[in-house]
Amino acid sequence: MSIERLFIANRGEIAVRIIVAAKELGITTIQAYSEADADMLAVKLADETVCIGPAKATESYLDVNRVVAAAIEESADAVHPGYGFLSESPEFARAVEQAGMKFVGPSATTIERMGDKVAARQAAEAAGVPVVPGSKGRIGSVDEAVEVAAKVGYPVMVKAAAGGGGKGIRIAQTEDELRILAPQAQQEAVAAFGDGGLYVERSVKSPRHIEVQIVGDGDKAVHFYERECSLQRRRQKVWEEAGADCLDEETRENLCMAAVALAESVNYRGAGTLEYLYEASTKEFFFIEMNTRIQVEHPVTEMITGFDLVREMILVCGGAPLSVSQDQIKRSGHAIEVRLNAEDPFMQFLPWPGKVESLKMPEGEGVRFDHFLYEGYQIPPFYDSLIGKLIVHGKDREEAISKMAVALEDLEINGLKTTIPLHKALAKDPSVASGDFHTQWLEPWLEAGNLKPENT
Amino acid sequence: MSIERLFIANRGEIAVRIIVAAKELGITTIQAYSEADADMLAVKLADETVCIGPAKATESYLDVNRVVAAAIEESADAVHPGYGFLSESPEFARAVEQAGMKFVGPSATTIERMGDKVAARQAAEAAGVPVVPGSKGRIGSVDEAVEVAAKVGYPVMVKAAAGGGGKGIRIAQTEDELRILAPQAQQEAVAAFGDGGLYVERSVKSPRHIEVQIVGDGDKAVHFYERECSLQRRRQKVWEEAGADCLDEETRENLCMAAVALAESVNYRGAGTLEYLYEASTKEFFFIEMNTRIQVEHPVTEMITGFDLVREMILVCGGAPLSVSQDQIKRSGHAIEVRLNAEDPFMQFLPWPGKVESLKMPEGEGVRFDHFLYEGYQIPPFYDSLIGKLIVHGKDREEAISKMAVALEDLEINGLKTTIPLHKALAKDPSVASGDFHTQWLEPWLEAGNLKPENT
Repeated sequence: MSIERLFIANRGEIAVRIIVAAKELGITTIQAYSEADADMLAVKLADETVCIGPAKATESYLDVNRVVAAAIEESADAVHPGYGFLSESPEFARAVEQAGMKFVGPSATTIERMGDKVAARQAAEAAGVPVVPGSKGRIGSVDEAVEVAAKVGYPVMVKAAAGGGGKGIRIAQTEDELRILAPQAQQEAVAAFGDGGLYVERSVKSPRHIEVQIVGDGDKAVHFYERECSLQRRRQKVWEEAGADCLDEETRENLCMAAVALAESVNYRGAGTLEYLYEASTKEFFFIEMNTRIQVEHPVTEMITGFDLVREMILVCGGAPLSVSQDQIKRSGHAIEVRLNAEDPFMQFLPWPGKVESLKMPEGEGVRFDHFLYEGYQIPPFYDSLIGKLIVHGKDREEAISKMAVALEDLEINGLKTTIPLHKALAKDPSVASGDFHTQWLEPWLEAGNLKPENT
Repeated sequence: MSIERLFIANRGEIAVRIIVAAKELGITTIQAYSEADADMLAVKLADETVCIGPAKATESYLDVNRVVAAAIEESADAVHPGYGFLSESPEFARAVEQAGMKFVGPSATTIERMGDKVAARQAAEAAGVPVVPGSKGRIGSVDEAVEVAAKVGYPVMVKAAAGGGGKGIRIAQTEDELRILAPQAQQEAVAAFGDGGLYVERSVKSPRHIEVQIVGDGDKAVHFYERECSLQRRRQKVWEEAGADCLDEETRENLCMAAVALAESVNYRGAGTLEYLYEASTKEFFFIEMNTRIQVEHPVTEMITGFDLVREMILVCGGAPLSVSQDQIKRSGHAIEVRLNAEDPFMQFLPWPGKVESLKMPEGEGVRFDHFLYEGYQIPPFYDSLIGKLIVHGKDREEAISKMAVALEDLEINGLKTTIPLHKALAKDPSVASGDFHTQWLEPWLEAGNLKPENT
């Protein structure tokens, strides 16, 4: 019943991470790779390997047919999708299931449901999880918008119901503003989508991104507490923490138990994350979406709880019941992860892959480095620029930041540009130290020129 | 008041460990090194360095005058002795104190007192900590030996009171045996020491080595739970764990609180370890000695508690009160450390230092590698053969062992012989898996030829 041959349909550091967890469970690993990835570390570590196509991801890692065919060819009995690529594709999950293999994630139906914003919001509401208050559906008139706004409270966001891509979005602080902005939004919506329908919802002030890690076995689910990932650039998380020190114990408990309720209500299987916006001034949190896969930032949760989430997701997706009950999961101390990208932070974060000429890794208590680098490795330019994640754990947030500062100093990756200087500057920043930030903090900080060679 | 310039009077991996902890606290590090150690990693990482003499340890790391003179010369305000070398020398601690510097350890008086076996035993008894039951002092006659034995229970160990070096030691299972063996021991004692005085104590059956980590600030002390280090070869620990799964909760609590009582009764400052023998069949534990320094195996405790012990010892020895109270220290999961020595396990553990030709480090959740290696580093042959410590943490002992097995597989150190094969064999051994061992288990296991190239 349990998994014996695991096919890894991903690359980079997460492939290495999955291989190590699978090996510890005595599972044979089969690593898929593109022609550009023949030299990657996961290929060296896996028991077996198979080339699934050319460098171009749409013809290899993103090609459902090729990936599934390779897994069948290699007699895999399960497929781990990692993150990104096909990890949240219901088509992929379904194809894997239909080929008689296990998908290391939830069922295709659950992925589909949680991937649909409206259906996910409905599932959350049904499970009693708060969502951002707003209009139930599309509204046609300005008066109707004013009525909804009065109910949900100002400021409100008005956006095209048909929309996407930021078109037709306005934020109104007062009714007067709304009466001016709503018609503008409507005109823009008509121009862009040929549909003047609007959607109105509360605009969360200085929102913090809080998320809860859960693991479910299809029946029961448990949470592994929360993370805060408010330091973002272009909606990409840059610096991630566990726990979120801005929460009080009661809010944390509510947030986490809401996540468990939602996960159980959809019979969730595997590792998943519920993302919330949190408004610190009112202590309100709102569900925004669920990620139905392992996340890049999962190690911070592992550091504070002592559980191996990749192992747990492999076990439950192999058919085992949860190996742990909620009362066995305790949090201890504080962890921080920084994402290291092969980019030049002084040149608008231009991707800068290269050859790893030399590598010096940090040591010390509570220091972890998840990566796929080795000396002489040529990083291919075709994929995401993430080259590794530096993770530290301290007894509290202050200690964790001091550990991060020293680990960043001791880490040396020569031969390419990396975002290490950005993280060195953040580790020294007083707003970061005091926790005084939100999801819209980092970009203005960068635009204001706070990242300078001399403060890194 | 707190430490600003820390002199590190040690080498190898512990010097690296101390530098990282000091840097995180914003302390300037000054690394001492012998002429043979100019290339070592700690010299590269420290803020400042100073050569303290030739390769021979008695003329460098063990020379109190040279080390203290160098620390004064470099304007250090504190000295960290690490482990081994001068770490438990009351003369050294006193010289450091008299030069107006802080010693990162207890006072010279405490080191002296706990270093004296009789005084340490008295301190333990005074604090209510059980010691191995035996005669109060020397006994002169066989009848007296029989009387004591009846009180402490068989089997008993008879040894020369004047003795040492194993001369004149006999183990008697019954009174009849004792009446035969005691006179033999007496004769041997007379022959060896010209003194027929005997000492009788309980012989602990299949003893397990359990120890408790404490940190004190000179007033209060806290414990960080226990470790088990029963896998030993020639009285050297080889494989260390936290916690000791052979203990029940009540025994664990008693063992740990006894350690706190003893530490507080001697106004202990710094990190220290109380070592006990534990008899699993009767659940009795007996204090044997206290180590008044940080220990090689401290990382397993850090892994299960989330506290940085080297940081904590630097803080309290800088004059700060304990940063943590007992109820904030929780244990979570299980950790294992293996000592990697530059020795050939297939050739009677012959030391085999060499040049590190290549190095591949393990990755993964809960994996830590404390070491002082880098590619091209020539390990000098003059010192202890410890080259690194591989440490893993899992949610339970079984998971930790599986993580250790994979981490050992993924670790590659080329250019020298190491004890990795021994640890690979232990990680697969059924007695190790079931925890069915004691301090006299490993040597017979080795002698019986259980370490074979094919099981590593």
